[in-house]
Amino acid sequence: MKHTSRDIRTANRYAVLRHLIAKSPASRGELAAATGLSQATVATLVAELTALGLLVEVGFEESAGGRPRSLVAVDAAGGALVGVDVAETYVHAELFDLALGVVARAEEELRPGESAPEEVVARIAAAVGAVVAAADARRPPRVLGVGVTMPGQVDRERGVAVRAANWGWRDVPLTALLGERLPYPVHLDNPLRAATVAELWFGAARGCDDAVVINLGTGVGAGLALGGALHRGVTNSAGEWGHTTLVLDGRPCRCGDAGCVEAYVGAPAIMRTLRELAPHSALLTDDDQTATIGALGRAAAGGDPVAVRVVRETARHLGAAVADLVNLLNPEVIVLSSWVAAALGTPLLTEVRQAVARHALGSPFAATEIVLSPIPTDPVSLGAATFALEGVLSSPGLTGTTLTPHTT
Amino acid sequence: MKHTSRDIRTANRYAVLRHLIAKSPASRGELAAATGLSQATVATLVAELTALGLLVEVGFEESAGGRPRSLVAVDAAGGALVGVDVAETYVHAELFDLALGVVARAEEELRPGESAPEEVVARIAAAVGAVVAAADARRPPRVLGVGVTMPGQVDRERGVAVRAANWGWRDVPLTALLGERLPYPVHLDNPLRAATVAELWFGAARGCDDAVVINLGTGVGAGLALGGALHRGVTNSAGEWGHTTLVLDGRPCRCGDAGCVEAYVGAPAIMRTLRELAPHSALLTDDDQTATIGALGRAAAGGDPVAVRVVRETARHLGAAVADLVNLLNPEVIVLSSWVAAALGTPLLTEVRQAVARHALGSPFAATEIVLSPIPTDPVSLGAATFALEGVLSSPGLTGTTLTPHTT
Ligand SMILES: [Zn+2]
Ligand SMILES: [Zn+2]
Repeated sequence: MKHTSRDIRTANRYAVLRHLIAKSPASRGELAAATGLSQATVATLVAELTALGLLVEVGFEESAGGRPRSLVAVDAAGGALVGVDVAETYVHAELFDLALGVVARAEEELRPGESAPEEVVARIAAAVGAVVAAADARRPPRVLGVGVTMPGQVDRERGVAVRAANWGWRDVPLTALLGERLPYPVHLDNPLRAATVAELWFGAARGCDDAVVINLGTGVGAGLALGGALHRGVTNSAGEWGHTTLVLDGRPCRCGDAGCVEAYVGAPAIMRTLRELAPHSALLTDDDQTATIGALGRAAAGGDPVAVRVVRETARHLGAAVADLVNLLNPEVIVLSSWVAAALGTPLLTEVRQAVARHALGSPFAATEIVLSPIPTDPVSLGAATFALEGVLSSPGLTGTTLTPHTT
Repeated sequence: MKHTSRDIRTANRYAVLRHLIAKSPASRGELAAATGLSQATVATLVAELTALGLLVEVGFEESAGGRPRSLVAVDAAGGALVGVDVAETYVHAELFDLALGVVARAEEELRPGESAPEEVVARIAAAVGAVVAAADARRPPRVLGVGVTMPGQVDRERGVAVRAANWGWRDVPLTALLGERLPYPVHLDNPLRAATVAELWFGAARGCDDAVVINLGTGVGAGLALGGALHRGVTNSAGEWGHTTLVLDGRPCRCGDAGCVEAYVGAPAIMRTLRELAPHSALLTDDDQTATIGALGRAAAGGDPVAVRVVRETARHLGAAVADLVNLLNPEVIVLSSWVAAALGTPLLTEVRQAVARHALGSPFAATEIVLSPIPTDPVSLGAATFALEGVLSSPGLTGTTLTPHTT
């Protein structure tokens, strides 16, 4: 409940910078109108962000009746941020300029068995080194921070991967280990929250106080942005919507429970539905999830009856579970994100909207938009970079360095 | 996302006053320690609350090494707040002193058919007049505000009962109608949110950032307190957990959907479960929900096998649905509130905890306490009075009057 002046300043810096990232240049008056802050507050915030090297003055604009107004813009070239998406089989890094445009990408493979903390840390450091080197070979960019997302349970304050079930990790001090290899501030969080922040800053939830970002992949989760900020929960584990019960005593789920949402709408569950509806379908050529879901999406878009039935059966369950979020949280927007949502696309969205309409209460349903993620790049890397930017904004002074990283 | 200095001041006034309502007197230093605010901020807030007539200086306390510290306390007698709980069959009003102690209670019956807006308004005004008269016949209390809760969908900003399904109301301007009869500021909201605020200020959620208050009555809902404040949603309808799906295609629900949580754990649903498990049970003497659920609770506490089975079957469903809240929201505490929870008490709580343990993920489950509401009075009236107090705190100056109300 307590609100400190520092929290407020950080939140207001976010508000101003977000507006400028979406639309630069702008006058202080436009920023005041867009953020609801006073002109005097905006002037102070612009001065702070300029001192942090994030903004620049870019000239003057004629105003209707009087002296010209000065314009400010994000100083895209003033620094760089790196977002790293660590998954079970790969480490994907992207380097962004300060306007959050992608400057360089790199990917390191994590081979089966290669999952000891020091091995993963080496891969992350290598990927970061690769994007920094690729950004500008002659003059290394001024990297203000690195955001890293890890699946499983993370303690972002301590920078610890508390539990990564697939690798058997317990309490790995990832930020400290990375700090030995990278001369940049490192921010650790979870991919679900990164994707949510990406929608909140740059995607379908821009300007929304209450939004839900549904991650549809092998696992399933729901990132919650409530009251304009990420809802993390008391131990930073909120969002386990994939393991809420949709069919009491239903299909077994990998969490040990039965009837969970994920057991009907996660990628392996969709493959099971396909196998149940059409055991000999040509779509089931192998066990590769990405290939099968991709083929299913193309077949459904082309009107293939089996694929259409699988999408409809998936949407029947997904829609009921999305309606739960509509009724419980009354959000402005629900975004379907991640690779399964991208692969099944509009055919899935259309069926989901119809299923939500059948299950949700009229009043909150009328207030909620349901959309596919509009973010063209990897939302997890973008969100991870945003966490690094938030770290810069919440610091009293400048935190960047221009040292070259010690990569392996 | 925008935070104004006025929001902050209101939030900080809450924080100081809440602490003093829980424990008066206190020194400014104790208040600073309890709220995390600076001594200077606390001194300013205490001065403002004193000017509003809510606090008084009550003398000095010796401090360990130096000059004595002055103590402040809530000025319990400095004013009064009225909370009104409007239900389908009654209007219940309570008058509170500023320490939120109950001074007077009154109840007006709403007979079947007596549901036109002007009839209900007259009953509310009569109940308020009765508690004001009962509080002190010679010297009317200084009533700072009246909070009124209405079931259904309410627009608190405009003071309109948007929809009250049981009475067929659409867009009734209740606050304006009451304003013609009562010379006090009137604040309208919904009983679920009132019960949640009561737990947040005075009950099991005190000091919690993230809490859920489950209303178990004829209807079922979940009040959400997230980030230390009520989560209302974009159209003030958040909390319809009773109409989230627990058993896809399950029991029909009065919302028109099937398999909702309410269809298994609302009072009529519990009576249906009793009828299904023991069609000839002596507990089913009549259709009176309150009497039947009361008898069921006493029988379960006494070990009656049928009653125990009904409570267990109810808890099996309730526990799965509570686990959904644990997994999705990761709260610190979940409070079971309202008359069904009170009637089934500890036998229900014990079974619910076991069912939640079977369904919830280990990490958020370990972080969540599940308790019965500890509030000894009617939490809805208390919460309604709290909304009136919040109105006082968010006003720049004093809003109370000492006029006698024009009651009918
Ligand atoms: Zn599960
Ligand atoms: Zn329902």
